[in-house]
Amino acid sequence: MDPCSSVLPATVLEQIALRLGCSPTDKKLAFRLDEEDELKHLRECFCIPKVKDLPPTDLSLVNGEESCIYFAGNSLGLQPRKVKTYLDEELDKWARTGVHGHFNGQRPWALADECILDLMAELVGAQRQELALMNGLTVNLHLQLLSFFKPTPRRYKILLEAKAFPSDHYAVESQLRLHGLDVEQCMLLVQPREGEETLRMEDILAVIEKEGDSIAVILFSGVQYYTGQLFDIPRITKAGHEKGCFVGFDLAHAVGNVELHLHDWGVDFACWCSYKYLNSGAGGLAGAYIHEKHSQTIKPTAQMASRYFFTETYTAFWLIGWWGHDFKTRFLMENKLQLSEGINGFRLSNPPILLVCALQASLEVFGETTMKALRRKSVLLTGYLEYLIRHYYSEDKTNPEKPFIKIVTPSQIEERGCQLTLSFSLPIKSVFQELEKRGVACDIREPNALRVAPVPLYNSFHDVHRFIEILGSAITSSKQTANNTVLSGSY
Amino acid sequence: MDPCSSVLPATVLEQIALRLGCSPTDKKLAFRLDEEDELKHLRECFCIPKVKDLPPTDLSLVNGEESCIYFAGNSLGLQPRKVKTYLDEELDKWARTGVHGHFNGQRPWALADECILDLMAELVGAQRQELALMNGLTVNLHLQLLSFFKPTPRRYKILLEAKAFPSDHYAVESQLRLHGLDVEQCMLLVQPREGEETLRMEDILAVIEKEGDSIAVILFSGVQYYTGQLFDIPRITKAGHEKGCFVGFDLAHAVGNVELHLHDWGVDFACWCSYKYLNSGAGGLAGAYIHEKHSQTIKPTAQMASRYFFTETYTAFWLIGWWGHDFKTRFLMENKLQLSEGINGFRLSNPPILLVCALQASLEVFGETTMKALRRKSVLLTGYLEYLIRHYYSEDKTNPEKPFIKIVTPSQIEERGCQLTLSFSLPIKSVFQELEKRGVACDIREPNALRVAPVPLYNSFHDVHRFIEILGSAITSSKQTANNTVLSGSY
Ligand SMILES: Cc1ncc(COP(=O)(O)O)c(C=O)c1O
Ligand SMILES: Cc1ncc(COP(=O)(O)O)c(C=O)c1O
Repeated sequence: MDPCSSVLPATVLEQIALRLGCSPTDKKLAFRLDEEDELKHLRECFCIPKVKDLPPTDLSLVNGEESCIYFAGNSLGLQPRKVKTYLDEELDKWARTGVHGHFNGQRPWALADECILDLMAELVGAQRQELALMNGLTVNLHLQLLSFFKPTPRRYKILLEAKAFPSDHYAVESQLRLHGLDVEQCMLLVQPREGEETLRMEDILAVIEKEGDSIAVILFSGVQYYTGQLFDIPRITKAGHEKGCFVGFDLAHAVGNVELHLHDWGVDFACWCSYKYLNSGAGGLAGAYIHEKHSQTIKPTAQMASRYFFTETYTAFWLIGWWGHDFKTRFLMENKLQLSEGINGFRLSNPPILLVCALQASLEVFGETTMKALRRKSVLLTGYLEYLIRHYYSEDKTNPEKPFIKIVTPSQIEERGCQLTLSFSLPIKSVFQELEKRGVACDIREPNALRVAPVPLYNSFHDVHRFIEILGSAITSSKQTANNTVLSGSY
Repeated sequence: MDPCSSVLPATVLEQIALRLGCSPTDKKLAFRLDEEDELKHLRECFCIPKVKDLPPTDLSLVNGEESCIYFAGNSLGLQPRKVKTYLDEELDKWARTGVHGHFNGQRPWALADECILDLMAELVGAQRQELALMNGLTVNLHLQLLSFFKPTPRRYKILLEAKAFPSDHYAVESQLRLHGLDVEQCMLLVQPREGEETLRMEDILAVIEKEGDSIAVILFSGVQYYTGQLFDIPRITKAGHEKGCFVGFDLAHAVGNVELHLHDWGVDFACWCSYKYLNSGAGGLAGAYIHEKHSQTIKPTAQMASRYFFTETYTAFWLIGWWGHDFKTRFLMENKLQLSEGINGFRLSNPPILLVCALQASLEVFGETTMKALRRKSVLLTGYLEYLIRHYYSEDKTNPEKPFIKIVTPSQIEERGCQLTLSFSLPIKSVFQELEKRGVACDIREPNALRVAPVPLYNSFHDVHRFIEILGSAITSSKQTANNTVLSGSY
């Protein structure tokens, strides 16, 4: 974490407001923050939707010509302007040279994924050869668990968060069943304490301490998709390693959002998708990482063990494709496997050039700054959102009529990325709909969470301020609807 | 096979030449055939590269402004013109509406793959619900083998062609090892007879007859990537079923090339890539099929059995992702799996919209005709190529100086698609290079094969005739180089 960030966002905001001679809730503050934002030019690299173009917009309520407030980058990032340029370049190459594109041009298709590894490596803090860009996240997660989860009679559990993302949950379940293990017994879920919604680091560490000797793999998300909680990746990794476990992370909501140093932290494996904070478009190319220290030992193999005969294990070459074969001899087609080292041996199919183009366009924008700088802005931007929500919507026990908002995401900046997860004292669906009518893009997750993510790459402080204004109208409108609903007696 | 095709291409060609009053080798015949080609307008739907734009072209030898002779569709299909339009549509939607693209527009991203299933179903002769578009071919092959290969003490072998494509070979090896089976013993490879290069159907059937009781899965390619041999899919399937085996096909070189009726033939499973005859661009979205009859029984599960304890088996939910969860409840995120039926339950990750656009553009061109009509043209087009090669380059034992070409691909039209695999009496690398210098795109495969594929969607009879002319110069030039090389004494 940036040492500068020891000053709390709230303090920074109040100080600037003081200098400006205005309240921290004044729009002036937002403008000043934007002026001082050293990354504000990056917004120009993205296509920002207009209010009128969002399908749920009600044009009787808002000015359609304004930019929308796009707080849904946690779900699907905005389009980098260069995507079209790069796609056109490759379409042009394909149109003009056909199959020759495989080994020619800026992005020879046969090596397309490798062309952008350095940019990706920078973002996750890994070495180039520790990374592969391939498949979708869930596919990669399975491929990695197959190799890292090698249960033995003493070490056979997988530790993960309760309410992990469904794919992760199913993947772990699958892997346990594959080995004939009892899911109830072997899938250790860390639950929040009674009445709490996020996990306490001390509780995670306590489970690792207590159960570590029987845990084969710890699989956590970097940032939890629902609560927005950022886990302490290096500490979890260290604690896991002290107990002899492998430690891996699903970084879907962490990559491009928070600083990552996978290599230095010694994280064993990780995977992520690229359509959220990496802005590569729906179904974009996913990433996978395996630490260099495993490059000779972890292969795309699985060690199968029968449930009743734990002592009898064997390794098996496993889920191998021609793309995992060393480049130098791959096209000789002799069917004599020469497996690439590390994660590269896990590649199965040739890479999709169109997806590479989109991802490259985004990674290059990241390349114009650093995750450190982005994170510095992010802390202040999300801090500003939090400040205003608290200011207007804290619970007031003396005024039970007043609508309030609970911030589910931890308030410590070390424990969150850019997303805040909000729950409301009002019916959330209606608040959400009212926001959407007014040009806000954010998302609702069952049962009771509104996720709002101001993204430092393309969101402004002004966006945050406008959001708060619109939230005011949305809540008012929602309250009216609620009252009307009660009056009209419908459910 | 089309009943009309009982007339051999050679006979048709000679008859038309007779009517024209010219030799069948005369360019006039090519022009007449093009005139009469009912599918010639489809060429307009593709971007045909110009000679000058192909990197190996030597402009001192050819007119750069002409269209190249693109006979490499077996490796990478040409670009359908609509790809750009469809990509632009989705880029535009993404730019204008961000995350709303998931459930809006012509191709809602969350359902993008499903939008083009009907077109795909038509091409492979399957029902819509028997298909999924996902991942790369090799990934799909593994997912399917995991479910279909369930060795028992009596039935534990996998039958495939010797010299299968490396990914298929590795996949089978992996699967056998996964179950602790001995590869030598359990991987049955059907070899061509001594001195032959392609497989005889009777030999394939004989192995099935002899070994069938111990074969769990038969995995064949539809069209062999190296030899271009088309296997008799319905007969292999029937023979396999009679012995109680599952029968699956890698259709990488068959789809879009020959007629397929996967459902009616009762094929158990199949997978294919889309960047060859389906023209979707490098690394395009792959397809997977599982017959409806298995929709309730074949799940993304694997039955694990220890080698020494064959009697103890268990099924395991296996390689499941959120995209395999039924659409109706998928986004509730409750982690209570409701698996979709059949192949749809095998989906792991959300679909890549950009790859869907490219594939759609191509499938729609196919949609303007039928595989039956394409195949009719293809038989004549490849027959014409064969006719001219035989005419000019048959071996002449009385003239050992004369260069000759052997057609490795079977001469029976039922046993091949559009590709001919050629081997030469001259050093093949040099012939290939001379062809490339003159604007021909085709490919060389180690050790000694030139693959040329006239594709009925976009190749003309004139292309074939020009190819033969250019081949003449290429061979002459090659012979000179060979002589010079001998003279100069280099290796
Ligand atoms: C017959 C065959 N099978 C499998 C593959 C591998 O395909 P992918 O890289 O799409 O997994 C190919 C690629 O050319 C092929 O020709
Ligand atoms: C935390 C997390 N893991 C996994 C996934 C699944 O990703 P995919 O469909 O790309 O496999 C998502 C998708 O949103 C996610 O948020």
